[in-house]
Amino acid sequence: MNTIIKSAIGEKMDCLTGVRAIMKDITETLTARSNVINLSAGNPVILPEVAALWKRCTRELVSSSSFDEVLCRYGSSQGYEPFIEALVGWFNENYKWDIKKENVVITPGSQMLYFIAANVFGGYTTDNRFRRIVLPLCPEYTGYEGVVLDKRMLKTFKPIIEERSSHEFKYLANIGENLVDENTGAVIFSRPCNPTGNIVSDKEVEIIVSQASSKGVPVFIDSAYAPPFPSMVYDEFENMKPAFGGNIVHCMSMSKAGMPGERVGIAIGAPEYISSIEAFQSNANIHSSRFGQAIAAKAIASGELAEVSKSVIAPYYRAKADCIKKALHREMGDVPWSLHKGEGGIFAWLWLKNLPITDVQLYHDLKAQNLIVVPGSTFFPGFNENWDHKGECIRVSLTATEEAIEEGVRVLARVADAVYNAGSQSKIMKNCKSADCHLALR
Amino acid sequence: MNTIIKSAIGEKMDCLTGVRAIMKDITETLTARSNVINLSAGNPVILPEVAALWKRCTRELVSSSSFDEVLCRYGSSQGYEPFIEALVGWFNENYKWDIKKENVVITPGSQMLYFIAANVFGGYTTDNRFRRIVLPLCPEYTGYEGVVLDKRMLKTFKPIIEERSSHEFKYLANIGENLVDENTGAVIFSRPCNPTGNIVSDKEVEIIVSQASSKGVPVFIDSAYAPPFPSMVYDEFENMKPAFGGNIVHCMSMSKAGMPGERVGIAIGAPEYISSIEAFQSNANIHSSRFGQAIAAKAIASGELAEVSKSVIAPYYRAKADCIKKALHREMGDVPWSLHKGEGGIFAWLWLKNLPITDVQLYHDLKAQNLIVVPGSTFFPGFNENWDHKGECIRVSLTATEEAIEEGVRVLARVADAVYNAGSQSKIMKNCKSADCHLALR
Repeated sequence: MNTIIKSAIGEKMDCLTGVRAIMKDITETLTARSNVINLSAGNPVILPEVAALWKRCTRELVSSSSFDEVLCRYGSSQGYEPFIEALVGWFNENYKWDIKKENVVITPGSQMLYFIAANVFGGYTTDNRFRRIVLPLCPEYTGYEGVVLDKRMLKTFKPIIEERSSHEFKYLANIGENLVDENTGAVIFSRPCNPTGNIVSDKEVEIIVSQASSKGVPVFIDSAYAPPFPSMVYDEFENMKPAFGGNIVHCMSMSKAGMPGERVGIAIGAPEYISSIEAFQSNANIHSSRFGQAIAAKAIASGELAEVSKSVIAPYYRAKADCIKKALHREMGDVPWSLHKGEGGIFAWLWLKNLPITDVQLYHDLKAQNLIVVPGSTFFPGFNENWDHKGECIRVSLTATEEAIEEGVRVLARVADAVYNAGSQSKIMKNCKSADCHLALR
Repeated sequence: MNTIIKSAIGEKMDCLTGVRAIMKDITETLTARSNVINLSAGNPVILPEVAALWKRCTRELVSSSSFDEVLCRYGSSQGYEPFIEALVGWFNENYKWDIKKENVVITPGSQMLYFIAANVFGGYTTDNRFRRIVLPLCPEYTGYEGVVLDKRMLKTFKPIIEERSSHEFKYLANIGENLVDENTGAVIFSRPCNPTGNIVSDKEVEIIVSQASSKGVPVFIDSAYAPPFPSMVYDEFENMKPAFGGNIVHCMSMSKAGMPGERVGIAIGAPEYISSIEAFQSNANIHSSRFGQAIAAKAIASGELAEVSKSVIAPYYRAKADCIKKALHREMGDVPWSLHKGEGGIFAWLWLKNLPITDVQLYHDLKAQNLIVVPGSTFFPGFNENWDHKGECIRVSLTATEEAIEEGVRVLARVADAVYNAGSQSKIMKNCKSADCHLALR
C-alpha cells in the first residue's frame, strides 16, 4: 500500500457527492437481489427508434470518406467543425438566433462543461476574492457539487413552495431576493430540473438573468432535458423556446437524446465565454471525442434528432409521468403526499408532508420491501440551512416500465401508511441528520 | 461584449502554453501559403493498415448486440469493462504482470489523465503546503505546463548532455541530484520523449522511481509512444518492456496508435492511485467516451493492435528517422549540428551549437523560406533557468514524406549556413528573451 498525500483539490474531488454517495448501496442491492423494483435509475431507456438512428448514422459515417479523418486525426479544441456547423444551422433556422461558429464549444459531456465553467468563474481570483457559483433554487442536480474544486463555492437559495392543489406543488425561485451580488462568479440551474421536473418560468429566467447581467455574471442554463433535443417538456411547455442572448450560456448534452455513452456537451453563448471554455479544454483535455460529434452532426443536420425527440422520446416519458400521477391518486389513501408538477425530464419528485422519519430511513424501509428510490435530501447541493422539507422528499425514476411504476407505488403506499401510523414512535429517527445518514450509507 | 471576471485558475487555464502558443502563427502560415514544407505537425500520419483496423472494428461493433449498450448507456467512471478486461489480459499475458481490474482507469485522453494527476498530487494541501510536480529532465512535453492549475507547480531539472559523436547527442537525467524531496507531489516524464525521441534508460528510471518511492510519491511514466501500442521504439529499444510496480503509474494513449480523434487515455498502477483518478473523473466528467474504448478492446484482445504497431507504425517512423539523419549528414556542410539519438517517437530534435540567433528567429527565417519547424525553446516547461542551449534547438516532425523531409533539410542547411556566416551581426537578436518572442508570436 503506497502512502498517498493529496492536494486540497485532490481531497475534495475524492469525495463522492449527493446521489453518487448512495449509488454503491443501490448497486449492491440490485446486484444481490433479483426481485427489486428499481425506481432509482438515471440511465435513460434505450428506445428502439433512437438506437436505430444512432446505428444508421454510424453505418453512414463508417462508409464515408470522413471516417478516417474523424477517428485518426486530432481535432480543434472548439469541437468537430461539421458538428458545430450543424448546430449553428439548426439554431439559426429554427429559433432565428444569429449565432456563428465562435458562439459554440463542445466538451466531453456537459458535466465537464459545468466543471470548467464553475472553476473558471468561481473560486479565488488573483486578488484573493472568493467568487461563488449561485444556484438560484433547490432541489438541484447534485453533480454541481461534484464539479466545484472548492466545496465552499456553491451558494444555493431556498425556493418558495407553491401548493397548486392538495396533491400538486411547484418550486419557485425566490426572485424577490438578491440572488446575485458582487461575489457571484456565475449562475447555474437545470431547466427542466433534475430531480424535480420543474421548469423555471420565462419570467423567473428573465429576472435571474437581469440580476446577473447587472453584475457582469454569466448564467449557464443546463438544458439537458430541454428542446430541441431531447425536448422532454410537457403540456404548456411543449413549445418552449430556449432563453438566449447577452450573458446566457445555453448548455446542452447528447445524453438524454440517447447517446450518454459518447460524452458530448455543448455550450452556446457569447464568444468571450466560449473562448474561455475552449482554452481551458485545450490545456486540460485537448478536445472532445469526435465520433459522437460526427454522428450527431448527421442526425441534427437531417432533422431526424429533433423529430425523434418530439415524436418518440418526449411522449415516452410524458406517459410515464401520467402513469405515476394516476397510480399515486389511486393507491396513496390517507398518506399526505404531493407530487411536483411534472413539467419535463425523466423523474417524478414526491413530497411526503411531515414525514415522521427521514427520507434516508424511508429509503431503507422501502429497500427492505424491495423497492429502490433515491432519498431527496441528496438533491440540495450547497444548501446547508436546516429545513424539514429537505428530508421529506424522494426522487422516482420514470425509466421503469408502467407495471413497475404501478407496483412500486403500491409498495410505497403500504410502507408510507405504516410509517405515518407508527408516527411519534419514529420521531427519534428524525434527529439523525441527513448528512450523518449519508455517511452511514457509504 | 460581456465583462469577464475569472478565477486565478480561469486566468491560468486561459493561457496557451508552449507549442500551442505558436500554433496560431503556424496555422495561419499553412492556410495562407500552398508551397510550405510543414515539418511541425504533431498529428500522426493516417497509415492505411491502421485506419483499416479501426474501420473493421467499428463495422464489427455496429453489427453486434453491444452497440446500443456502448452508445446509449452511461458507463462506469473507471472505464468500459470489456476494454479494461482486454488491457488486464494483454499485460498479464505479455509482460507477466499481475494486475486486476482495479489497477486500471480510463480517461478522456491521456492529457486529461495528466491534468487529474498533476492537480490531485500537486498544489496546496489542506495544511497549506505547496507540493510540486517534478519533471526529472527537459526538454519535455509542453502539455505538462498546460495541465497544472497553478503555473508555479512544475519543477523541472536541467539534463546532462552526453555528446556521443560529432553529430549525435543524448540527454541524461541528472540522477546524481535529489530530484525528489518532501515537497514533491508526483513525478512525470515522457518515455520515449516528445519532443526529443529520448528514452530514459532503465537505470535512470530505477533511480528516479526509488527516489520517489522513498518520499511516498507516484511516478507517472507517459508512454504515449512506447510499447506495446504504438511501440514507436527503435534499434536496441525494440524489445523494451514498460517499467512497472510499486509507485509507478504506467500511462498510455490510443492517439499514436492511430486514434487521436476518440480521446482514450489509460492509467495502470496501484489501486490507491487509480481510485483517486477515478473519483476525480466521476465528479468532473462522469466517464470517458465508450465508442473508442469498445473498438480498441477488440483490436487489443485480437492481438491486431500490437501486431500493426510492430509491423507498420514503428517501421514507418523509424525509416523517417533514418531519412532525416542521412539528409543532415549529406546537406549540412560546415553547420555545427547535432541530432538527438533517435530512440523513439515521431520527432527529430536538432541542436544547432552556438546558434547566433534565437530559435524563434530561426523559425521566422525558415518560415520566410517556406519551411515550418517548431522552435525548441517551447519545450522547456517549468524550466526557468537561463541556459543558451534552450534557444539552440528545433523540433522536426517525422510525419512528412521523405521527399518533404529531404527538401526541408536542404532549406534548413541553406538558411543555417547563412545565419552562421552572418554570425556576430545577428548576436543582438539573441538578447530577445524566448518568453518575449513567444508573446510576439501570438
